[in-house]
Amino acid sequence: MIIVVTPNPAVDVTYRVAEQRIGATQRVLDVARRPGGKGLNVGRVLAATGTGTHAVLPLGGPSGRWVADALDALRLPHSDVAVTGETRTTVTVVDDREHPTMFGEPGPRVTPDEWDAVTASVERLLDNAEPSALVVSGSLPSDTDPAVVGAWVAAARARGVPGLVDCSGDALLAAADAGATICKPNRGELLEATGAADERAGALQLLDRGAAVVVVSRGADGIAAHTVDDVVEVPAIAGVTGNPTGAGDAATAGLITALAARPAGVSGAGAPVVVDETALRTAAAFGAAAVLRPVAGEVDPDDVRRFLTTTETDTDTDTAPHDRTGSPA
Amino acid sequence: MIIVVTPNPAVDVTYRVAEQRIGATQRVLDVARRPGGKGLNVGRVLAATGTGTHAVLPLGGPSGRWVADALDALRLPHSDVAVTGETRTTVTVVDDREHPTMFGEPGPRVTPDEWDAVTASVERLLDNAEPSALVVSGSLPSDTDPAVVGAWVAAARARGVPGLVDCSGDALLAAADAGATICKPNRGELLEATGAADERAGALQLLDRGAAVVVVSRGADGIAAHTVDDVVEVPAIAGVTGNPTGAGDAATAGLITALAARPAGVSGAGAPVVVDETALRTAAAFGAAAVLRPVAGEVDPDDVRRFLTTTETDTDTDTAPHDRTGSPA
Repeated sequence: MIIVVTPNPAVDVTYRVAEQRIGATQRVLDVARRPGGKGLNVGRVLAATGTGTHAVLPLGGPSGRWVADALDALRLPHSDVAVTGETRTTVTVVDDREHPTMFGEPGPRVTPDEWDAVTASVERLLDNAEPSALVVSGSLPSDTDPAVVGAWVAAARARGVPGLVDCSGDALLAAADAGATICKPNRGELLEATGAADERAGALQLLDRGAAVVVVSRGADGIAAHTVDDVVEVPAIAGVTGNPTGAGDAATAGLITALAARPAGVSGAGAPVVVDETALRTAAAFGAAAVLRPVAGEVDPDDVRRFLTTTETDTDTDTAPHDRTGSPA
Repeated sequence: MIIVVTPNPAVDVTYRVAEQRIGATQRVLDVARRPGGKGLNVGRVLAATGTGTHAVLPLGGPSGRWVADALDALRLPHSDVAVTGETRTTVTVVDDREHPTMFGEPGPRVTPDEWDAVTASVERLLDNAEPSALVVSGSLPSDTDPAVVGAWVAAARARGVPGLVDCSGDALLAAADAGATICKPNRGELLEATGAADERAGALQLLDRGAAVVVVSRGADGIAAHTVDDVVEVPAIAGVTGNPTGAGDAATAGLITALAARPAGVSGAGAPVVVDETALRTAAAFGAAAVLRPVAGEVDPDDVRRFLTTTETDTDTDTAPHDRTGSPA
């Protein structure tokens, strides 16, 4: 079982309209609501591909209740920490002509006491649920002390449970400082958080701070795992077009899946985690499968299997072309 | 006490962004949520100016719970009918450059049984709460039989309680057929519902169907009351600029206030309702006060008093200029 913390969950609303126009009153033709936030995307992909998860998340107000109900409907186990502020909503407006427009609320102010309750919830699961890993993924609400991420990583580390963190900014640095097993930013986030001039320099900064491995997702340029001594890289699966939103979250799920599938589990008994080519190829296959789905947080397990086979046998040529372009909702 | 039915209430969300742009991810700088729907606007204005109200509305899902909680916070008495569908949300996006963009969800499907429960709730209030009028205001959810509006009007009429209806389309015709005391469309709605070529012809159609009076709000062109024999008109209060959204709802509140203030109440003991110049001037004063407020459903009672004095003493010249332009949220 994987514990997945989503610090800033959301109600992701998608409005389809006939034609996006500024300054107009537009009838919404179709409304879709989904529980959102990067951690929940990771958890949904893990669940869809057969890995047990347990979500931990602060939830507040009617939109928080909506997220809790939606997770129940999806049969995703979750531990909610009640917060006073209201869980944020994102609204994405799509039509058949223009790129989607996204409006993102900043998220509630979560108090230090409420964060302590989230940490206590993580610790309870670490102590009692025999997790094979802890994942922390997504932004922090405004005015959150990034040290909370360090506290979760440290709690996992103290119990020999590997911690993977996909955050940005100071939260990414805090995760490295606390000795995260894997820091997994995308390249832009890595450069922004570290101020480094290139990916390798940024990765070395996080490794120097305390991260064991830094996995960098490069979008169409593939994925790389940095350690102090080495860089392992695999290309993205070619010929896959569609909706890139959530592909990085699916790659995180793939990475965790590969590591958890090893005979000794993610880490063996305290053994160092090795992110090898096989693990990165699994991440790439999950990411590619997510691109084929019109919404974030979903993969078709058959697509994952197909891409895994592809990467095992023939990694440098295109797979069968996939002209299906998902709606970028 | 005035019963106010809102057939299609909403959570009205306003997002302020730095600059509206299609196809971009936009950080929401400020979020405002208000209970919306024309009937709730009428009720809030009545409450703000000292008239007791009781809202009746179908509410469903988390957004319905949000509306109920918000009405509690505003101390507006309300009877909610639980419906399976989720209460709609409207999202209005504003910046300091362009006109606002509004996205309107269609609203839930409300079943015939659920509408029967709304009617039963209206009847209970008519029987037990000694209301001086019934107001029905706003759109119907998709696929609603407009006969429900007729049922509410008929229930009021059977008990000698005047019914004022501000609806559009077939619901407006159904209200007239059921003998509404006042039908109060705006001019566009009147022409659209009746297919008439001009306001007088449209008003005569509604009077012929059974309405006692047809009050037509003309925006900047004032307001008129049509009976079979007569048309009474007053101009809009000049020199008032700001946010016209909800001005018609405030005018409805003003009209009801004027009629309820008469010694014999709105109708006396079954006496016909007379919408005279004084009543229309009160409606215009409330409407002008609403224009000065940045959001619908609000008036400053001092503004109302000032405009009432103005219209009593000097109706054809401008009031002191009001350069304050409300945010058109």
